[in-house]
Amino acid sequence: MSIQSVYRKELFDIPSDILYLDGNSLGPLPKGAVERASQVIKSEWGGELIKAWNSADWISLPKKVGDQIAPIIGAPAGSVATGDTLSIKVYQALAAALKMRPDRKIIVSDNGNFPTDLYMAQGLIGTIDKGYELRTPAPEDVADSITDDVAVVMLTQVDYRSGRMHDMSEITRKAHEAGAVMIWDLAHSAGAVPLDLAGCNAEFAVGCTYKYLNGGPGAPAFIYVRPDIIEDIQPALAGWMGHDAPFAMELDYRPAMTTERMRVGTPPIVQLSILQEALKAWEGVEMEDLRAASIALSELFIREVEQRCPQLSLASPRDPDSRGSQVSFAFDHGYPAMQALIERGVIGDFRAPNIMRFGFTPLYLNEGNVVAAAKIIEDVINHDLWQNPKYQIKSRVT
Amino acid sequence: MSIQSVYRKELFDIPSDILYLDGNSLGPLPKGAVERASQVIKSEWGGELIKAWNSADWISLPKKVGDQIAPIIGAPAGSVATGDTLSIKVYQALAAALKMRPDRKIIVSDNGNFPTDLYMAQGLIGTIDKGYELRTPAPEDVADSITDDVAVVMLTQVDYRSGRMHDMSEITRKAHEAGAVMIWDLAHSAGAVPLDLAGCNAEFAVGCTYKYLNGGPGAPAFIYVRPDIIEDIQPALAGWMGHDAPFAMELDYRPAMTTERMRVGTPPIVQLSILQEALKAWEGVEMEDLRAASIALSELFIREVEQRCPQLSLASPRDPDSRGSQVSFAFDHGYPAMQALIERGVIGDFRAPNIMRFGFTPLYLNEGNVVAAAKIIEDVINHDLWQNPKYQIKSRVT
Repeated sequence: MSIQSVYRKELFDIPSDILYLDGNSLGPLPKGAVERASQVIKSEWGGELIKAWNSADWISLPKKVGDQIAPIIGAPAGSVATGDTLSIKVYQALAAALKMRPDRKIIVSDNGNFPTDLYMAQGLIGTIDKGYELRTPAPEDVADSITDDVAVVMLTQVDYRSGRMHDMSEITRKAHEAGAVMIWDLAHSAGAVPLDLAGCNAEFAVGCTYKYLNGGPGAPAFIYVRPDIIEDIQPALAGWMGHDAPFAMELDYRPAMTTERMRVGTPPIVQLSILQEALKAWEGVEMEDLRAASIALSELFIREVEQRCPQLSLASPRDPDSRGSQVSFAFDHGYPAMQALIERGVIGDFRAPNIMRFGFTPLYLNEGNVVAAAKIIEDVINHDLWQNPKYQIKSRVT
Repeated sequence: MSIQSVYRKELFDIPSDILYLDGNSLGPLPKGAVERASQVIKSEWGGELIKAWNSADWISLPKKVGDQIAPIIGAPAGSVATGDTLSIKVYQALAAALKMRPDRKIIVSDNGNFPTDLYMAQGLIGTIDKGYELRTPAPEDVADSITDDVAVVMLTQVDYRSGRMHDMSEITRKAHEAGAVMIWDLAHSAGAVPLDLAGCNAEFAVGCTYKYLNGGPGAPAFIYVRPDIIEDIQPALAGWMGHDAPFAMELDYRPAMTTERMRVGTPPIVQLSILQEALKAWEGVEMEDLRAASIALSELFIREVEQRCPQLSLASPRDPDSRGSQVSFAFDHGYPAMQALIERGVIGDFRAPNIMRFGFTPLYLNEGNVVAAAKIIEDVINHDLWQNPKYQIKSRVT
């Protein structure tokens, strides 16, 4: 069966006593990562020193990793640059997009966007200081907010709290009809749902690789630029690694004629190498099969939890077609309840004010795991185990 | 003897057949790095998964590493933020500095600055698009270029090619007299020369950690902000990790009241951990002792090379007080000569158009190494070994 074809838990090192429903926040350790990191650190850095930029081909690593990400997000080879953090990539995309519509001043996002995207937009607006306006309607009002004076529409496809999913092709079409530039943040999409960036025709997409792509804590981000516009992009973050000839040491910036112009500084070789290793897990994965498995798992989870715990109310869309690869439940005691679950090996996470969030990652989760997790949730909720005072203390990262 | 007190080669893993005179480009492998990376990847990421942000205290790592860097650059604890690349940190500092002088439009740098600093300035100028002007006089003309209409003076203290060193305190004083904001790039200074950021009173400093600080390829950068101005800084790159309450998920950016406001996105935990390990090598190092050792090594190198190879002409200041921790020689056949040296185990690097550059790093180099390297240089130059056709082919990274 095709759904089984994506299950490959043997490629990951996951503690046997953990039911990990948080791969949408930090993916688990791919088995090859430790060895690969050791090799890069000990043999390449330690043994080759500066020569490794050539001998170990570090210099090509950002492009190679971009080319591994491209098929997962429905993008052509050569259209994805890697490096930096997602926040930085948001800034790059937005700054470039605004330059493409010099006569317009409005940026449309939504109030379900991940905050850093909005913060980066606010920082850019403050830097340019020419009266740009960031509008954040409710997600369901975005389509109607795309008026003919909008410069850029910048949205995260899958809501980080609820899992609600925007229709990429429909909103992109609407943005283009209004003459706006489209930017998609794929943080909760890449490796979670099938994507057709080339088909939807959006100008920019950005994303991170430590969630569904399992690149490790603080793994580098990526940016996609539609190939037909790359030569006209004016990079705000005009770093030497995006220069057409970085080692010519010219005094003036002259951008590379490819997506590489979206690179900035010296790439994080160790983390990029781990990411490259992690992306091997995607070889042979058909995204449609992955999506079918994801829906099967999340539907099963909703059924099981709703039957067992009427106190929890579904905070994700009930229609799987409108939902990414996560399921959230609202519960007023969500914070201590999540701590109690984590202590029992069911790892999800909490998002203020009352969201218990669970991610479904068919590469290493199966139906048995989902039922087992639901039973533990039932135990914690129905026996009020979350009332234990030790679960009330808020840690810094929640 | 105090110079000996800084020599600690036993802390590094350097191939025995290599004389490494390129620690100013990529520092060598600290012995603890492999084990530390393995622990972070296998035990923390693999074993703790998302919980490691708290249980392994990943969340505090950027600040802890900043506090390790602070004493090396003469800055108080709490004044240094880490993350991103040096290019990004240049952009942050410059954008913030320009906001501090809204009525001025001139940025003074110099034509010896590392190109990415100039490129980032050009990118920022293009983004703001309000007539800012970047002036790049010759390094020796910088002081006279700081007129009363200059907004920001942005310089790299030690020239990446020649090793020529600006007088930080004198130029900062001059900048402040003219009402300008001062930014120092310490890429070739941090871990190389004694620095007194607090004393020189500059508003900003930035630097990288993969050179003299031995943080590994693509290690995170740092930024210093003078503590008395941090609360007024308007971050251009307003990422969630610089927010006062990153996990409150507020819709509006509200910067942290500390240097942490210069952070942007999710930190690269693996590379930061390696850097943290690498910085242990600096415990007990007195920077004045290191500087004395560096001068002794570089003076010896100049004497030895000049005696042996009259074909090479010194391209660094002869006065050690005007020179960082590197020595450069100009040689028309510098590129193939450097390839020939590298094949013989003497690793320096080449910088266009004709510079052979050698770095002196007293943590793991001694006088015997310097003499041995000079003898091999003599062999390559005086026997024209660089004429071998195989050394003429330019690799991508030179």
